[in-house]
Amino acid sequence: MAMPQGPQAFPRSEYLRRLAAVKQEMERRDVGALVVVLPANITYLTGYTAKSGYVPQGLIVALNEEETTFITRRMDAPAAVHQMFVDRGRVIGYAESLIANPDKDGWDAIIDHLMEAGFGTGNIGIEEQTLSSQTVKKFHARARPASVVGFGNTVCWIRGIKSDLEIALMREAAAIADAGMLRAKEVMRPGMSEADAAAEIIAQLVRGAGGKQGTDVAEFTLCASPRTSTAHITWAEDEFRNGSQINIELAGVRHGYTSALMRTFSIGKPSDVLQRLHEGEVAGLEAALAVVKPGATCGEVATAFNDTLKKFGFEKEARCGYAIGIDWTEPTASFKIGDPTILKPNMTFHLMLGNWIDEDLGYAISETLRVTDVGAETFSTLPREIIQI
Amino acid sequence: MAMPQGPQAFPRSEYLRRLAAVKQEMERRDVGALVVVLPANITYLTGYTAKSGYVPQGLIVALNEEETTFITRRMDAPAAVHQMFVDRGRVIGYAESLIANPDKDGWDAIIDHLMEAGFGTGNIGIEEQTLSSQTVKKFHARARPASVVGFGNTVCWIRGIKSDLEIALMREAAAIADAGMLRAKEVMRPGMSEADAAAEIIAQLVRGAGGKQGTDVAEFTLCASPRTSTAHITWAEDEFRNGSQINIELAGVRHGYTSALMRTFSIGKPSDVLQRLHEGEVAGLEAALAVVKPGATCGEVATAFNDTLKKFGFEKEARCGYAIGIDWTEPTASFKIGDPTILKPNMTFHLMLGNWIDEDLGYAISETLRVTDVGAETFSTLPREIIQI
Repeated sequence: MAMPQGPQAFPRSEYLRRLAAVKQEMERRDVGALVVVLPANITYLTGYTAKSGYVPQGLIVALNEEETTFITRRMDAPAAVHQMFVDRGRVIGYAESLIANPDKDGWDAIIDHLMEAGFGTGNIGIEEQTLSSQTVKKFHARARPASVVGFGNTVCWIRGIKSDLEIALMREAAAIADAGMLRAKEVMRPGMSEADAAAEIIAQLVRGAGGKQGTDVAEFTLCASPRTSTAHITWAEDEFRNGSQINIELAGVRHGYTSALMRTFSIGKPSDVLQRLHEGEVAGLEAALAVVKPGATCGEVATAFNDTLKKFGFEKEARCGYAIGIDWTEPTASFKIGDPTILKPNMTFHLMLGNWIDEDLGYAISETLRVTDVGAETFSTLPREIIQI
Repeated sequence: MAMPQGPQAFPRSEYLRRLAAVKQEMERRDVGALVVVLPANITYLTGYTAKSGYVPQGLIVALNEEETTFITRRMDAPAAVHQMFVDRGRVIGYAESLIANPDKDGWDAIIDHLMEAGFGTGNIGIEEQTLSSQTVKKFHARARPASVVGFGNTVCWIRGIKSDLEIALMREAAAIADAGMLRAKEVMRPGMSEADAAAEIIAQLVRGAGGKQGTDVAEFTLCASPRTSTAHITWAEDEFRNGSQINIELAGVRHGYTSALMRTFSIGKPSDVLQRLHEGEVAGLEAALAVVKPGATCGEVATAFNDTLKKFGFEKEARCGYAIGIDWTEPTASFKIGDPTILKPNMTFHLMLGNWIDEDLGYAISETLRVTDVGAETFSTLPREIIQI
């Protein structure tokens, strides 16, 4: 029995629309074939979410072909047949002998395919920023007489404006994130180990919410006293105490689409300085949201946040948000002073106000939002408060 | 209050021993300063496990300095102060304005530091295979008049032979993996959703076992009928049925150290072909283990497995294992026909016999093992059986 195609997160027409946008850019740059390698971009163009990107794999988008061709390790081809919207003949597994092979690797298989498929003349685009220097050299050396040209972050920028179907998945993911945060409130108590709390919260993110299951576990960060000034650690071999503060960053995931959320918890009454910081951050958050609308720039959103926070006597050095979608951060627009990106409807951002001010003062709050026709829609339904336990 | 240094997974002497091995290689190649960027290598040399490697960060090992210097985004410096064994002055946070900045990034900060610290002459080593081509170009252009030379996978190879302290952590991680697999046996039933099962299993991996908590969630793979020929998917929006087969790959994690484990489950009696495949794989596994000892090569282990499996009428195209340690796979030795790596005591491998033979026939079993003075020690205590539910 052949591997059946699985249920698809999106209709075929949605994928063809995305591909049309990529092909338009390819045409503009006279690129006949593009090798997409960033896993989130492959997910975007095909629905594939398997974790096979730690070895070479490439999705070929060709101007003269409606569907993409995926060249991956043979072991991963069945998952691609199951998950991708394309005809099964469009998934090509390369020999396992190319894995852990110092002389020849999967990139050779991808280049061989490009040459055999007739792309040996003209321009071949690569996502050079996600490839090692050796691999870029190999493309230049072996894809001759084709010219190998950098395609940069173009596909990531195309991902920036979501369809309503993508927004629907991000709302589902946000409901899961909310459920995770509520579970944290429910279980975290003095004397409980951080790991036991993390287990309960992560399990909720997997189980899902609102009848929709989580489809993956995203990065999970739990920074409790005395680690409240740290940003990216998992959890520690420690337990909660009376007076502990806990900063949590988590996300719900639906078929790759990620909605992130941060909240600060306090076991007992928060300190005065934390309370003041919280008030400044929430005021800044609301000021930032008030600026979000089509036509505004990302830089203006950051300015609104920063100016407001300053009135409360605090500053935040880091950017206060970034584009979000498949696999969390999109490497494109940031809510950062001077970022010229102009907001458009259905762009989505993580307005991320984690602020690690001093080694004993850190605070976390965030909202995942979309730009609407007139302003901002935040996906979370949780109140913007320090969650007191 | 300053951020306190946290409890350390290893004594200082252990880190100095590891650094001495790296410095010996640096001396041999006349490299005065080495920029370590692979996150697992940074963990190895310092104890740092925070997830900050998605932006530029570099650990500088200098021949003329006992401790390392870590240059990271300012936001991540407190976690490094907390987790690393070095003096807090050895952690340098670079300005947040370098994040999402098209003109200048954290690599510039790292290069600036190298120049200011007096490494602007002589040779600077970089892990070029983990850097983008643009970053490699930047090192060559900006670190002048120093010569920038590739250091390759050298630190990964040094990681290959574990100390007894590392082995102890891997045993703890293996006990957690066992507990996860036993939890799978306990909860998976017909009618249960794959996500609900995954939630229970992953929660167990976080809670830990034997009084030791999991410190992270590693990749988790659950491939149930009809997806038993897939290798790297998480779980599907589906439920278990009578007759379902479920292949699980999971790992326990202790302070970065990862012990992986695969088992195949069957709800009801396994099919005859699956049973035959299982018998061949277990015979192959035992044949491979019988070959493992100091002096044997990785290639010989693979040959023993392949030759045995063939007697049962099956083949496995992919390599049958790889070096394992921090962050799962080490990009060095493989149990692969012809791999010349000579086994030494306290090398650790994931003998990984996942075998996806056809689109309706896949099977998973594995052992994480160490090479002893005379043979192999497998860390898991689970029987090598198809776990029938």
